[in-house]
Amino acid sequence: MADVKKVCVIGAGVSGLSAIKSCLEEGLRPTCYEQHDDLGGIWHYTEDPRPNQGAAMFKSVVSNISKSMLSYSDFPFPDDAPMYPTHERVLQYLRDYANHFNLLPHIRFGTQVIKVEEAKDHVTSGQWVVHTAGKHETFDAVILSNGSAFARPVNPDVPGHEIFQGVQLHSYQYRTNKPFEGKRVLIVGSGNTAFDLAVDVCRVATQVDLALLKGTWVLPRLHKKGTPVDEHAYRRVYTDIPASWLNGILKDFSNNRFDHDMYGVAGTAQPITQATPTINDDIGLCLASRRVVIKPQLVELFATSARFADGSTVNGVDAVIFATGYVNCCSFLDHELQADIRKLDVYKLVFPTKLAHHTLALVGAGQSNGPLFPLTELQSRWAARVFKGVRKLPDTNTMQGKAEAYKDILLATFGRLKPTTNNVVYRDDLAAEIGVKPNLLWLFLKDPLLAYMYYFGPAYPFHHRLVGPNRWKGAAAATKRAYYNTFSGVGTSFTPMDAGSVRLNTKMIFTCVIVGVMCALVIIAWL
Amino acid sequence: MADVKKVCVIGAGVSGLSAIKSCLEEGLRPTCYEQHDDLGGIWHYTEDPRPNQGAAMFKSVVSNISKSMLSYSDFPFPDDAPMYPTHERVLQYLRDYANHFNLLPHIRFGTQVIKVEEAKDHVTSGQWVVHTAGKHETFDAVILSNGSAFARPVNPDVPGHEIFQGVQLHSYQYRTNKPFEGKRVLIVGSGNTAFDLAVDVCRVATQVDLALLKGTWVLPRLHKKGTPVDEHAYRRVYTDIPASWLNGILKDFSNNRFDHDMYGVAGTAQPITQATPTINDDIGLCLASRRVVIKPQLVELFATSARFADGSTVNGVDAVIFATGYVNCCSFLDHELQADIRKLDVYKLVFPTKLAHHTLALVGAGQSNGPLFPLTELQSRWAARVFKGVRKLPDTNTMQGKAEAYKDILLATFGRLKPTTNNVVYRDDLAAEIGVKPNLLWLFLKDPLLAYMYYFGPAYPFHHRLVGPNRWKGAAAATKRAYYNTFSGVGTSFTPMDAGSVRLNTKMIFTCVIVGVMCALVIIAWL
Repeated sequence: MADVKKVCVIGAGVSGLSAIKSCLEEGLRPTCYEQHDDLGGIWHYTEDPRPNQGAAMFKSVVSNISKSMLSYSDFPFPDDAPMYPTHERVLQYLRDYANHFNLLPHIRFGTQVIKVEEAKDHVTSGQWVVHTAGKHETFDAVILSNGSAFARPVNPDVPGHEIFQGVQLHSYQYRTNKPFEGKRVLIVGSGNTAFDLAVDVCRVATQVDLALLKGTWVLPRLHKKGTPVDEHAYRRVYTDIPASWLNGILKDFSNNRFDHDMYGVAGTAQPITQATPTINDDIGLCLASRRVVIKPQLVELFATSARFADGSTVNGVDAVIFATGYVNCCSFLDHELQADIRKLDVYKLVFPTKLAHHTLALVGAGQSNGPLFPLTELQSRWAARVFKGVRKLPDTNTMQGKAEAYKDILLATFGRLKPTTNNVVYRDDLAAEIGVKPNLLWLFLKDPLLAYMYYFGPAYPFHHRLVGPNRWKGAAAATKRAYYNTFSGVGTSFTPMDAGSVRLNTKMIFTCVIVGVMCALVIIAWL
Repeated sequence: MADVKKVCVIGAGVSGLSAIKSCLEEGLRPTCYEQHDDLGGIWHYTEDPRPNQGAAMFKSVVSNISKSMLSYSDFPFPDDAPMYPTHERVLQYLRDYANHFNLLPHIRFGTQVIKVEEAKDHVTSGQWVVHTAGKHETFDAVILSNGSAFARPVNPDVPGHEIFQGVQLHSYQYRTNKPFEGKRVLIVGSGNTAFDLAVDVCRVATQVDLALLKGTWVLPRLHKKGTPVDEHAYRRVYTDIPASWLNGILKDFSNNRFDHDMYGVAGTAQPITQATPTINDDIGLCLASRRVVIKPQLVELFATSARFADGSTVNGVDAVIFATGYVNCCSFLDHELQADIRKLDVYKLVFPTKLAHHTLALVGAGQSNGPLFPLTELQSRWAARVFKGVRKLPDTNTMQGKAEAYKDILLATFGRLKPTTNNVVYRDDLAAEIGVKPNLLWLFLKDPLLAYMYYFGPAYPFHHRLVGPNRWKGAAAATKRAYYNTFSGVGTSFTPMDAGSVRLNTKMIFTCVIVGVMCALVIIAWL
């Protein structure tokens, strides 16, 4: 591969910012085209939908990932940021990140990408020509970080939707509950957005009916004692225990807030690790007060009513909101490449397998059952190192073989090509590709507390700055301070706890001894 | 006491309706004066404050007691009523109750009581003259069920309140969060209302600061697995275990949602059984996202800022809402009687001790740490039976002695005469006065399952219709169905569970055997 220097980054959202940063730290020259006049992507709330933007924020959104999990790996939130930041606070964080790492000079705002095509000498150079309004420029590589996972809304073709007399909208058009005051509103969907909207709308509507596409597992942001549920759920130790144990643990987390059978939202036999849990703290009370009523799948709309899969109907419906998600699209790409991406012929969700030169990468195009910031950052770091030439990819057949195997798993699990990943496993996999995955034994010998936290504790983003290229000296301290950093964000002016660091305690030593003895026994049994 | 027939009931809210009903079932002739043109009292939501009304409902209120605990003792909510009814649904329930027992003909709407005074021959007859606009009528007895516990708002005299340039209001004037959109709002208080308002306002405000008068224990409506917390907290067995055990259990309930120390709301060493817990499901996430920030006591207001007990200040305050409660008042009573009531010279919170004739009773004047509907109903039933003459009260000295002892406990616990009670103990005490408290051994021999549920299960209102005067044939069935009745109210059209009754199971038998053996051992040890 030629020595890559100039990289085009498309979009200045969560993925794009980490892409610029990763290019810079590898000595590449990034240029980011951002169609809007400000950074932030979907975290940039606007009162009206912005042109040519897919998913959008609505006013009441609070992050569903806690601050230490939401961070990029070398830029923790400050102590006084909320444990669960509002969308305004997340945008502020992205601004702070861009300023801290001086990313703004590399962004060209108000510049929409119209076309990305192979350069004339692409076969030998691997270069791309990127067209914007009235201009074009040649780049050695391209990072697609335009949020293609949330690009084009899916509007299910419900029979009767053309005769329904009320308001119909897709969730990307939703901003506040004001238009729905005193209305009866039907919401269609099963994901985070559907539940968030149901909770938001029911505060002013006369009634909300929530037609689930399928059952779901709901996890609250705040788990036992008000600790972030993601700090419990995303732990490396869980990747080494049988899935059935983990399913039991997570099911317990989920049912702790409300019994999913009694509350009628389970309706699925799918184990929780194979589903994408819905994060919502408020839906339980909304159901208990019947301001929201769960309905099965919507099968038909009429002038002012709706019929569901169980034959029941609801009358006097004033509005239907479809929270039915998005499909990937990158309309500025060559059709064949678009089709390959849509078919997930993409190595580890980053590199399209069939390209002869690995000078085009997807960042943030997949989904995951966990924090996306550290995940897109690892994708960016990997892409940058491949572009730079210090990391090689396998040959096309090997990559395509892995992509097919991954697709088989997705089809077996979800029945469709849902580009999702197991968050911790996938992050560690990418980290291994980049060479930033710490060796546990080495870590234990160097800093037993850190090793304990790395393996048994929350899988914080900071872990992938402990070793390897572009490591960050503050990573160990950030890991040890994360618990305090998270809790310092609770809204109280009382001093809830010492703003200190986690220290080695007897529980940790005990755990390590037990695990050590068990490992020894296993080894002896095998000898 | 003379044979009492005509009873004046003042107010047609929760207390008044049960007072009318109780009079009717004892064969008395009630006349209810209701100042407004509809029933429901504080459950009657109006967009603007109604004249001469103290506490009022705001738009987003959901009952903080679950339906089976909220019921009157012989009128369960229907299965499809929400587990936690909205205020509209509670009002509907009160209307249904009034219709079912044909109470409306006994209510004179739009009739405000101006004065209640002793009849000329009161010394011998015990009668009262009740004055309304341009009219007066003589009654054999009077029930004060005008919600005197929530009568006159307390506005703490905060230094600087006269120079504060923003909006100042008392919680009784609050209806919706609309006027506070985009504002910084300071809320003062520690009770249910303060927390409810903080949650409601923070959804639209830029920031809410909640200045606690003191620390508090917060319980969610939904306890583990989405079961109503009141069904766990109010159990007869808990009245027989040491307070320290119960404090531990309730503290665990409370900290399960969020750690009160970490979230900065504890700030008090008072055990939970001696406090009035705040019921709130949403404050945790509001704090975790810093939309609400807890502050210590407010000490001074300035033009646009506020200073707190820890010396910190908050600037740019647009509005202050005082959720600082109410003081009792019954301005239509004789001054001396008003003073006695205010001093709590009232036997078991119902009968003013110093009256020669017990022909005046307070219903719903006290507070409690639990469900009020069944409590006011028992007060009504007792009053009606005393008026009828089938229940006698002790002599004045005995009653005053008990009142003094009770006041001593209140002063020792709260530092002031807060007219509150331990809900289950107080209800059982009143039930014993009326003769409707079942004998546990008798119950066990007659229906072991019912006895198990009565003692170990939730202390449902229906228990006080099992035996004694005006017992209800449906009480046993209502007790056994309450669990299903409660869960049938969850908003789902899936069938979450069999709509059946609780049946005897091995866990119950095991518990009974263990308790039986322990009792036997204690008896043997004493012999």
